[in-house]
Amino acid sequence: MDIAIVGATGLVGREVLNILYDKGLMNGNKIYLYASCKSHNKRIKIKQKRLIVKELSIKNLKNKYDFALFCAGGEISKNWAKEFVKRGALVIDNSSMFRRDADVPLIVPEVNADDMGESKIIANPNCSTIGACLPIYAIGKEYNVKRVIVSTYQAVSGAGQHGVSDLKKQTSKKFKYKIANNLIPQIDKPLKNGYTFEEDKMEYELKKILNNKKLKISATCVRVPIENCHSESIYIELDEVPNILKVVELLKEQKGICLANDLDNYKYPMPILSNKKDEVYVGRIRQDTSNKKAISLYISFDNLRKGASLNAVQIMEHLIRTKHYIDP
Amino acid sequence: MDIAIVGATGLVGREVLNILYDKGLMNGNKIYLYASCKSHNKRIKIKQKRLIVKELSIKNLKNKYDFALFCAGGEISKNWAKEFVKRGALVIDNSSMFRRDADVPLIVPEVNADDMGESKIIANPNCSTIGACLPIYAIGKEYNVKRVIVSTYQAVSGAGQHGVSDLKKQTSKKFKYKIANNLIPQIDKPLKNGYTFEEDKMEYELKKILNNKKLKISATCVRVPIENCHSESIYIELDEVPNILKVVELLKEQKGICLANDLDNYKYPMPILSNKKDEVYVGRIRQDTSNKKAISLYISFDNLRKGASLNAVQIMEHLIRTKHYIDP
Repeated sequence: MDIAIVGATGLVGREVLNILYDKGLMNGNKIYLYASCKSHNKRIKIKQKRLIVKELSIKNLKNKYDFALFCAGGEISKNWAKEFVKRGALVIDNSSMFRRDADVPLIVPEVNADDMGESKIIANPNCSTIGACLPIYAIGKEYNVKRVIVSTYQAVSGAGQHGVSDLKKQTSKKFKYKIANNLIPQIDKPLKNGYTFEEDKMEYELKKILNNKKLKISATCVRVPIENCHSESIYIELDEVPNILKVVELLKEQKGICLANDLDNYKYPMPILSNKKDEVYVGRIRQDTSNKKAISLYISFDNLRKGASLNAVQIMEHLIRTKHYIDP
Repeated sequence: MDIAIVGATGLVGREVLNILYDKGLMNGNKIYLYASCKSHNKRIKIKQKRLIVKELSIKNLKNKYDFALFCAGGEISKNWAKEFVKRGALVIDNSSMFRRDADVPLIVPEVNADDMGESKIIANPNCSTIGACLPIYAIGKEYNVKRVIVSTYQAVSGAGQHGVSDLKKQTSKKFKYKIANNLIPQIDKPLKNGYTFEEDKMEYELKKILNNKKLKISATCVRVPIENCHSESIYIELDEVPNILKVVELLKEQKGICLANDLDNYKYPMPILSNKKDEVYVGRIRQDTSNKKAISLYISFDNLRKGASLNAVQIMEHLIRTKHYIDP
């Protein structure tokens, strides 16, 4: 197979390469790395493998690709996704460019892999949405989820290398304010209803992935001085009183979730636990004191992995299996 | 007046002294500082004033005090508050020792100063409760508040000097895990219902201060790697659709609140804004997308000041005014 990685030098692009390596997907496949002109001919070492980056330009494109994983900004996806589709690629896009297109599926493989259909472009949801999605989906298998209220604690790696640099160097080049020793309750642009676009993504995308237009969602997204791993405090309102043991069981059985749910023994989701891991860590699971028909829980997950690169590679793996790119 | 500060060398005790100085309350009054034997005869410099700390022991007590501000742990309050009451002091206690006693008023002066009555011990609420209390009270002047869901972002200074040291030195002496570059979704001991005692304080104390037993409350309390200033994401459910302009007006008029509510111009509550300030900063005020009869907002406040020392001094000031310690 021929696999293109667009935006290969960014935090998410590099993590995609690490994951491809670890999953053995670099063996026997050709991997083409693209980035801006600044990185042209740059060499990247991924574990034992050395790869060369090319400038993303028509003259550097091959005639045919099987997959193109876009890990750059929305503008790059807008300008280049269709070039790769023309060349036979299934495009998996990490940006927010196509997520709201009615004919572009928005996929978390554990939840709605079947929605992929025959689309040539598949959108990867926003990082904070992916994390919240799994526990809500798991609980939704047995309960009718009516309302979700989320407050996030989002790491600076979600804003890329310049975000990490702002934290480490105590600067405010990427963020409006310094993030070291501070919290910024704004991620992405403001909207007219008083929410930010990041918060609106949570609302729009959860409804689309869970295929539930009636679901009521409110998010407050906050940038915190953490290098990597997003965390979220989530209130999930049902239309009946839940059996908490059953809820814990549903979460435990959910693929993609790892429980860390033993407060008495200091076990709960934390960035130091979820960093570099594939699973969404879920804990602090309890019947809500403000509403006996609701559950409160807390999650932490690696936003660069399950929140971005891993989810994209999992979409590709699912397509490889179902489209018979490889012998079963 | 004779004013005793118990636990004078801690973060809250020192901030009490700063506030007494700034308010001119050190002029003409006698200030007695008490701490553990380790600090006996230690000299503290508060701006232009030099003070000497004494070990908290019977032999170092005077026969008469007007006020005693307790800024040490619950055990110290338990063992010593009544000694000071015996000596005529009105005790204002920062610990959680007396907060749930039916005959001990729990006071946020802007909200329920009149509840102080003739009690000789007055409890200062928990830091995260004080912050949440003001906007809920302000909105409650015009609307019936039914349910409150809070997720907190709590600074390490809430855990005292050792908490600050853990953040600065990347250690985990005070906290169970390292807090630098991490988040810990546990503050205080676990309870049987899956909540922590810190979260239970929010529930119990808000009901008591607001004198509203029917109010439904759920909190998730998280320690974040911030030196000072707690922040909170708060969902406030009413029994009618609110007029947001009116809500903003109520919050703006509330004593103790400072608005930072202009997302379009990057104005919202942040630790870098609320640090060393007296007010609870309130912003991100919006009609909730999950429930049109609810408001979401976000606050940040100096947990050492309004969350502890300032609130205690404000209680004392109210008593001075109403008990005629000074000429009107």
